[in-house]
Order: sequence, then C-alpha cells, then structure tokens
Amino acid sequence: MSKRYVVIMAGGRGERFWPQSRLRRPKHLLPIVGGKPMLVQTVERLDGLVPPENIFIITGREQQDAVASVCSMLPAENIVSEPVGRDTAAAVGLAMVIVKQRDPQASIAMLPADHIIRDRDAFHSVLDTAFQAAESKPVLVTIGISPTEPATGYGYIHRGEEFIEIGGRSVYKVKGFVEKPNIETAKRYLDSGDYLWNAGMFVWTVAAIDKALEENASELHRSLRDLESGLTEGKSLEAVMDEVYPGFDRISIDYAVMEKADNVVVVESEFDWDDVGSWPAVARHFKPDRRKNTVRGAALIEDGSGNIVVSDSKHLVTVCGVNDLIVVHTDDATLICPKDKAQDIKKLVKKIGDDPNWKSHV
Amino acid sequence: MSKRYVVIMAGGRGERFWPQSRLRRPKHLLPIVGGKPMLVQTVERLDGLVPPENIFIITGREQQDAVASVCSMLPAENIVSEPVGRDTAAAVGLAMVIVKQRDPQASIAMLPADHIIRDRDAFHSVLDTAFQAAESKPVLVTIGISPTEPATGYGYIHRGEEFIEIGGRSVYKVKGFVEKPNIETAKRYLDSGDYLWNAGMFVWTVAAIDKALEENASELHRSLRDLESGLTEGKSLEAVMDEVYPGFDRISIDYAVMEKADNVVVVESEFDWDDVGSWPAVARHFKPDRRKNTVRGAALIEDGSGNIVVSDSKHLVTVCGVNDLIVVHTDDATLICPKDKAQDIKKLVKKIGDDPNWKSHV
Repeated sequence: MSKRYVVIMAGGRGERFWPQSRLRRPKHLLPIVGGKPMLVQTVERLDGLVPPENIFIITGREQQDAVASVCSMLPAENIVSEPVGRDTAAAVGLAMVIVKQRDPQASIAMLPADHIIRDRDAFHSVLDTAFQAAESKPVLVTIGISPTEPATGYGYIHRGEEFIEIGGRSVYKVKGFVEKPNIETAKRYLDSGDYLWNAGMFVWTVAAIDKALEENASELHRSLRDLESGLTEGKSLEAVMDEVYPGFDRISIDYAVMEKADNVVVVESEFDWDDVGSWPAVARHFKPDRRKNTVRGAALIEDGSGNIVVSDSKHLVTVCGVNDLIVVHTDDATLICPKDKAQDIKKLVKKIGDDPNWKSHV
Repeated sequence: MSKRYVVIMAGGRGERFWPQSRLRRPKHLLPIVGGKPMLVQTVERLDGLVPPENIFIITGREQQDAVASVCSMLPAENIVSEPVGRDTAAAVGLAMVIVKQRDPQASIAMLPADHIIRDRDAFHSVLDTAFQAAESKPVLVTIGISPTEPATGYGYIHRGEEFIEIGGRSVYKVKGFVEKPNIETAKRYLDSGDYLWNAGMFVWTVAAIDKALEENASELHRSLRDLESGLTEGKSLEAVMDEVYPGFDRISIDYAVMEKADNVVVVESEFDWDDVGSWPAVARHFKPDRRKNTVRGAALIEDGSGNIVVSDSKHLVTVCGVNDLIVVHTDDATLICPKDKAQDIKKLVKKIGDDPNWKSHV
C-alpha cells in the first residue's frame, strides 16, 4: 500500500474570475482553460502517481457538493470540507491529522487545485523526487518554479547550495522565502538564476510537518491535537471540525512555517506551469483574432483590439471602439474592467459582498 | 370640426439606442426619458391642440401592433403602417393623401415621435402660429429651434426677413437649409443669430404640400396619385400601400422639397427641445452620482467616472476602473462603447444585422 498521499487545497473563493466564478463555483470548479474543471484536471494529473484512495481534497463547506459531484473518481470521504476558511496553515494541519489517522509513516504532497500543468510525466518525476527527498531526510520540500519572466505577482524561493542529489536531480537548501518583489527586484531575481517562484506545492512526511507546526505554530499545533483527540474519541471528522476549526488562526503556511523553518529544501520544476490567476492570464491560452481580441462565447467586436470578452453562446456582447478591456457576461452579472486593472476585481467583489442588495451575486 | 391634423412620423429603426431599442421596439416605443414611451408623450403633448381623431401615426409594419397597443387613445385606423420604410418624403406624401381623403381643406403638422418638449403651452402656442401661417398663405412652415450651443449634429435653417406677423410673433422667410456644419461653421451660425436647428417639424395645408410635391418631387407625386386612385376605387389603405409604396423613392422631405421650394417660412420655437439622439444625450436628463456616473438599473461602479450604465433591476453591471464608457445590458445583448463613439452604434447595428448568426438581435 502506498505511503504517499496527495492533499489538494481547493479553498478558493472565486474572486478573481468573478462574475464567472462565485463563492459556490470558484475557479477550480470551472473549465477556465481545458474542457474540464481545473480541479478535475488536477486530480486526473495524479493518475499513476498515487491511488485515488490516497488523494484528498480540502474545500469549503459551501463547495463540498459541487466538488464531490465532479470528483466522483475519489472516495466520497476523501472530500473534506472546512466549516470556515482558515488559510493554508490550517489546511496543512488538517491534512496532516487526516493522513496520520491512516498512516503515521505517510508522506504528503500539498497541491493547489487550479493550476495548469500539461507535462504530466515531468510533473510526476519532479513530485517523485520531492517525495524521495522528504522520505530520506526530515525536511520540508517545496517545488520551485523556474521563472520565465520577472513576475511581480508571485513570492520567490531563494535557492541555496545543493542539499542532496536524487536520481541525477539536485535538491537545494532554501536560503529564504521572499514576498512579491517590485519589478526591479524581480529582474534581478530572474538574472541571478537563484530564485524560483513559490507555487504553493509542498511535500513532507507526517512527522516532519507535525514537528514543524509544533515548533513554529504552537497555537495551531495545540488546536490540531484537539482535532486528533476528537477523532480518537470516535467523533466524526465533520463534528470535530465544526467544534475546533473556527478557533484556528487564519494564517498561511508560508508565514506560519516555511519562512521560519531551517529545514526547507527545494526541487526545481521541470514542467510547464501557469497558475492562470487572472483573465489576462487565461487569455494567453486561447488563440486571439487578428486584432488580438480573445473571445469566448458570443461576441462582436467593432474597431477594438486586445479585448477579452467572455459570454455564453446566446447573449451577444458587442464592444465598439474599445481596447484592452475585460468583459465577462453571465446570467445575473456583467464585469467591465481594463486588463491592467484585473487585480482590482477582488476589491470589487468584496464591495459587492458588502452590499446588502448584491451580496447574493458573490 | 377641426381642420387641423397632426401626423406623427414614427419610423425609427432603433439603431442608436441598441440594444435597448430594436427594430420592433425603437426609441419612440421606449421610455428613454420620462416614465412613458416617447411616442405616448408626443401624443399626450397634443392634448388640447387637436382632437384624437385628427392625430395620425405613420410607423413601420413591424411596429404597428406595439404602437397601437401604447396609443390606444387614438382610433385604431389612425395608426398607419408602411410596408417598407421610404424616408420622410414618402411619409409626408402619405400623410397628405390620408388627410386629403378626410378633408381637402385641412392643414397638417408633421411631427417627430421621439423628442422631448416639456413646455406644452409654449409648444401649443408656437404650433398654433404655424397653423395660422399655413392657413393664411400658401407656404410651407417649419419650426426652427433656437440653438443653445454650436451643435454639429443638426441641419440648420437660415432665417431671412420677416414674412408675416401673427399674434405678435414673427414668421420669417427661409433663405435656405444647410446640412450638418463643422464646429467652426456651427459657432458662426450660433453667433449670427440667423440660424435655427431643423427639428423636422413642418406645418402646411394639404393644397400647399400637394403643390410642393408636384413641383419638386414629381415622380413621388405621380406615385401618390396612384395611391389616391386606389383609395378612390375603394381598395383598403393597406392593400394599396402594399402595391404602391415599395416603388416610392427613398428620399427625405428636406432633400425632396424643403431645400428646393421658395415658399418656405419658419416659426421660431419658444419651447425647450431635445431630440435625445444618443445615450450621452439621454444621460443629461438624469441626475449623475458624485463621480458623474449615470446609472439606470442595477450597477456598481468602482473607481470610474462619467460612465453611463443601463441595466435592469436584477442583472448587476459592474464597472471597475473605466471612465466615460456606455454600457447597456439587456436580456440577450450587451453594448460597450465609449461615449465619444456613440455615433458608431448605428454602424455596429448594421454589422449585427448583416451577420446571419446575430441578425435576430437587431
């Protein structure tokens, strides 16, 4: 029986792709790129790496039914829902507790739900290296993405000297994690070759992450002990999560552990990767027309270029004399936003959620 | 029995207010400004000036039912539909023939269907003067709008010397009609005080317009004789129009008659007037928010000013980081267009009508 587990973090709230994505239908449940929901692509990408019974999904309570419905290839009990979102440190802790119940000797890969990776073989090979590294030494392994441009939208991993070689592939010590840089710093990072994008993919043994949480996030770790005791007493996971989870700190695993621990190593990605975090990023995956407009669904563009228009097959969106605009039409809401303000959509969605008239549209 | 008739030309094709206006639901059938369809406001504005049985509406065949339904205050037979649109000269000729059947001694005011005039008393008073002028001399009377700005979107009437005084109000000879000027010319016109906007409102007797058509548009006049003979033979108006109308020239009354005739006079408007010919013109009639956005229906604007957003009460249109944009959402189509390109909407609608996939959206 495999000792390797994968836990997919599917806690997105559907903000950046609003109005197509919603609280109950976030990006990972949409076929943003590719014919299937991003989460389904993520699960199918694991085929041959770990068996379905070793794949868990952590999602929000309001998304559980939708996730279970599209991920019927997994056992229903492997879809775990948080009663409230508590960021990635809590999800990592929850994953640790759940997998530990199955096998205290297990190793776990934590993966995001909604990224694009097309080269499955390379992905499997890199993950295998990461699992081997985690299984051979008590380290926290991250997968670092080799940067292809001076991106300012990602955190970076500062790669140090070689820590170990596995099957001809180097695993490096991590000197540190750095936050999203400005463009000058990002250019320096790219030129140096010593910085990798932090894609939020981690591999560790139950023991290693248990210890790391104990040492670096002691309050969360105590709460996780309560979660474990509840389960040991025979309570259902849902019942004990309802009790304990709301008290968890809301903190990312990067802040809580990765930036503090001194036993972090990194394996370099050798696969294509795109987190498609915005409409402009999505548009890069579709063939534009000769005026560089990207259209999905029914649209007619007169005298405009560089626009991204998303509708359905029946509602005609017409754009006349406008450039570089994002237009997304859905049955009950339409978004209009310049491409270079795509990052403001989150702010807009917050405003909509705060408006008693419109919060149902979030 | 009143010898005065009003014929309202309601032949608009709903292009400039697409997608809210459509071929079957053009501007005059919409409450663009004011709570009632523009055409209903136009009919109600005549209350006290001419009796309902003397008010006719000429509209398109595809709009007849909708017009009859909103104009139930008029006799059903007074709503006349053209089998095909043939511009204003044909409509003027048709009006002449219809009214002549009722009373060859009658006078007729031809009025547009979709303008805003709020000062009903002044409007009645000016029209009364125009009727008196037409009844006292064999002239073609136009109503000229005193310009309030150097508009380049209207044709102008060049006012000459006083022709006659009626009840203390001057009626002037017309020196000529001029086409839409450029901005420099428009400024000169405004400064001179001798130019008035041509709003397409005309008053004449049956005899005067009959003679003017005979002299200036002989081919159309011959076709009108066919129309009259058909009616005299006892054919229905609809049947004879189906026969004759498609052969009519497609020409405006301005080109066909007004610019050629030497017996044209003008009465100056003393009422407010706005033809609200575009979304930006409409927006001027609504109170903007503090960032000068004009919103009708459900909209949320984040970081944007000067926008015009039109939706219904349920579909939320959100605009984020955009200025001076027109956004109009309807059930089956959405328009996005900068305010300064509002005149291109007609072109866009033509393109939609030419597209076999989308012509039903026109």
